[in-house]
Amino acid sequence: MDLKVTIWNEFRHEKSHEEVRNVYPDGLHAPIAAHLRSEGMTVRVATLDEPEHGLTSAVLADTDVLTWWGHMAHGEVSDEIVSRVQQRVLDGMGLIVLHSAHFSKIFQRLMGTTCNLIWREREVEERERIWVVEPGHPIAAGFGPYLEIPREEMYGERFDIPAPETLVFLSWFQGGEVFRSGCCYQRGLGKIFYFRPGHETFPTYYQKEVLQVIANAVKWAAATGTPTVTFGSRPPLEQL
Amino acid sequence: MDLKVTIWNEFRHEKSHEEVRNVYPDGLHAPIAAHLRSEGMTVRVATLDEPEHGLTSAVLADTDVLTWWGHMAHGEVSDEIVSRVQQRVLDGMGLIVLHSAHFSKIFQRLMGTTCNLIWREREVEERERIWVVEPGHPIAAGFGPYLEIPREEMYGERFDIPAPETLVFLSWFQGGEVFRSGCCYQRGLGKIFYFRPGHETFPTYYQKEVLQVIANAVKWAAATGTPTVTFGSRPPLEQL
Amino acid sequence: MDLKVTIWNEFRHEKSHEEVRNVYPDGLHAPIAAHLRSEGMTVRVATLDEPEHGLTSAVLADTDVLTWWGHMAHGEVSDEIVSRVQQRVLDGMGLIVLHSAHFSKIFQRLMGTTCNLIWREREVEERERIWVVEPGHPIAAGFGPYLEIPREEMYGERFDIPAPETLVFLSWFQGGEVFRSGCCYQRGLGKIFYFRPGHETFPTYYQKEVLQVIANAVKWAAATGTPTVTFGSRPPLEQL
Amino acid sequence: MDLKVTIWNEFRHEKSHEEVRNVYPDGLHAPIAAHLRSEGMTVRVATLDEPEHGLTSAVLADTDVLTWWGHMAHGEVSDEIVSRVQQRVLDGMGLIVLHSAHFSKIFQRLMGTTCNLIWREREVEERERIWVVEPGHPIAAGFGPYLEIPREEMYGERFDIPAPETLVFLSWFQGGEVFRSGCCYQRGLGKIFYFRPGHETFPTYYQKEVLQVIANAVKWAAATGTPTVTFGSRPPLEQL
Repeated sequence: MDLKVTIWNEFRHEKSHEEVRNVYPDGLHAPIAAHLRSEGMTVRVATLDEPEHGLTSAVLADTDVLTWWGHMAHGEVSDEIVSRVQQRVLDGMGLIVLHSAHFSKIFQRLMGTTCNLIWREREVEERERIWVVEPGHPIAAGFGPYLEIPREEMYGERFDIPAPETLVFLSWFQGGEVFRSGCCYQRGLGKIFYFRPGHETFPTYYQKEVLQVIANAVKWAAATGTPTVTFGSRPPLEQL
Repeated sequence: MDLKVTIWNEFRHEKSHEEVRNVYPDGLHAPIAAHLRSEGMTVRVATLDEPEHGLTSAVLADTDVLTWWGHMAHGEVSDEIVSRVQQRVLDGMGLIVLHSAHFSKIFQRLMGTTCNLIWREREVEERERIWVVEPGHPIAAGFGPYLEIPREEMYGERFDIPAPETLVFLSWFQGGEVFRSGCCYQRGLGKIFYFRPGHETFPTYYQKEVLQVIANAVKWAAATGTPTVTFGSRPPLEQL
Repeated sequence: MDLKVTIWNEFRHEKSHEEVRNVYPDGLHAPIAAHLRSEGMTVRVATLDEPEHGLTSAVLADTDVLTWWGHMAHGEVSDEIVSRVQQRVLDGMGLIVLHSAHFSKIFQRLMGTTCNLIWREREVEERERIWVVEPGHPIAAGFGPYLEIPREEMYGERFDIPAPETLVFLSWFQGGEVFRSGCCYQRGLGKIFYFRPGHETFPTYYQKEVLQVIANAVKWAAATGTPTVTFGSRPPLEQL
Repeated sequence: MDLKVTIWNEFRHEKSHEEVRNVYPDGLHAPIAAHLRSEGMTVRVATLDEPEHGLTSAVLADTDVLTWWGHMAHGEVSDEIVSRVQQRVLDGMGLIVLHSAHFSKIFQRLMGTTCNLIWREREVEERERIWVVEPGHPIAAGFGPYLEIPREEMYGERFDIPAPETLVFLSWFQGGEVFRSGCCYQRGLGKIFYFRPGHETFPTYYQKEVLQVIANAVKWAAATGTPTVTFGSRPPLEQL
């Protein structure tokens, strides 16, 4: 499928934390980019420390779907660029929000809520089982009843989001929590998908099933046709 | 609250299975009825083996909210009575569907799907933790992050229902499954709530939190005002 | 797009009412079939008076998307065939429900409600303007703010359906009514789209825009991948 | 019902436009306040030109439901106060957004979209008919098939909002447009209702039916019980 994807990664943990660098020596965007390229997509990478965070108007205009991962530096993303990305989503660009980007400015902006959740006091390795609740949805294509991630960080409910328009996945955690981990939204002309997994110290983004969900989501979020919307004034009554 | 509630119970297990009779000697409707009465509601009990299953037109007309539990004899419920209950829901009666009544004719009729799900091959006692995902919803009133049932039967996804209009609760099971366990629907003028717990061999319906959910749901499902709907013909154009 | 479509038409008005035959001499399925074929789809036609209404298990198994038009003989459709179609939808076949098929058994079955509505006492020719409320949805692809049908029958709210999961179109009628005229649902693995226009005495199904909506809907409703669902028993706890 | 309501009005048109002052000499908040008081609610009025726009933390903490009307001075509302109101909604305060407040910062903030729409180039007096599409909803309590406003300003689709969680009303306009005019949302613990009518040059807020919708909406939006949410850390795995 001929899609133009921009993978945005904060790309800080990989520089500052050896533990993370050991898992993702080229950045956690690298395996995602490689997989989407292997599916025939045109992939560009953009990161926080580039000018305009790599998200110039030209880049966004040339992007069908943007994926977003951030964690330790949400506050450093410029409000102006957040507004630019938001407008581009409303104009039809797809957006895939990954893991700790639940707290990114762009996701909070589009949701209107805090997007807060619960997590475990002391990080542990625990098993996550991601159940398919809407098997007919394109993002679930190719999966059986569930996919399992052997070691992940827990995110649990209450997740402070607007109720998803479509809930595709639900996570079970070994420690006793559940989470709405695959959530679809339409905002303006743009489609948004939040996907939970991807803690930076685990090799989650090398896992075949996780990459397949992201690829499915990118295809789903790409705009159909070239919808346009007219706002503003309508003819006066007498001309009808 | 001055509400008229009819508690419908299949009431067969309690007669044929000693294990169930030991837990619910007066039927599993008994503790539910007692609790709703303690909240000031007017409660009537109806069961499968009564004439018209206890659900005459007069009884239904005098019922604000009906609760339904069934399991081993779904097929013995007459189609005519199912149609009568369905019409009464569409006319504004609330309906609370409990546990194994996911497979009842009335729930399948109102959902339009099989309402199938997964369960455990050999029943075991396992822990169920029911997480509140919509804490602002009236059915969740009074609860913290979750309620826990020490021993229950597992129900798991995929649950073949239309996506709930509001998802209030999500269940976590010790054995690795999750379930949409508190699901709200509007059908016609009537409100419907499916609530998962209540396997007949466990004392679930004696648990204070479970009874409180049922009471909250009854209050939520009761019709507001006396809505009426007009269908059929409208004046011809020239009279407007 | 290589899709197998079965167009089901009651095909009675065309035989018994000269006024209808004049508009649709080959049946109102004919222009729909012609258009879908022109888009490269494989199209089969099935009608009420054929054995099994033309909807054998073999035909349904070989159908990606079924469209349904009926009006005067809903009651003659066999319950057994309705159950067969319902199961096939739950297994993933798309279903496009057209105009007066709002009262078809299959639509009522899948919705769980009466699907009643209001109409005009004496039929008149009036203008219908169908507004796009979800311009980013694939079924709205290619349309501006609205499409207009010069002469149609009015259908108005209250339309007794479950709230659509996605509402794509809203109709305005000259006589003062509105209607949710493009409604999407997921039931089981199947997608359902209700589309309002198509009164048998008007040449609605020759109108380019109407045909384009139907073609878009067929593409949207076709199953993605080959999803499967497992219901029933799960391993006992000790094997996990 | 013992509810504390704060009615927020921009209160500028009434000072600067004689045409508006003639209709609402005491501000367009006056008839709304009078009606809610007549229903037994405790009503406070707050306006743009007061310190902190009349919306101090103390006022908001003492408010169950806030109603909001603004038009010509959306940009003058301080971002800090908007953030304060947003947080209070997420904490459980109800919010009723009226007419041109579709473009208010607080509504855009909570929706995440532009909330843009179409209007008529040259304002005219035209008839609005507001159809009830969800007659079982508490906000529709007491109404028949529709309510009619003899002279109003037109707002039309596309309305750039997230799809309402419940759509209660749909407007028909004489000039050929439709609008989703009664839209319910849950954000955090707070309920939000957008209600379309109320152009400042028409006596809409004196009309009994319009006031009744607002009163119904206030009752619906008031928080149930005192829900609380816990975010943040959960016990480590080994303590479970």
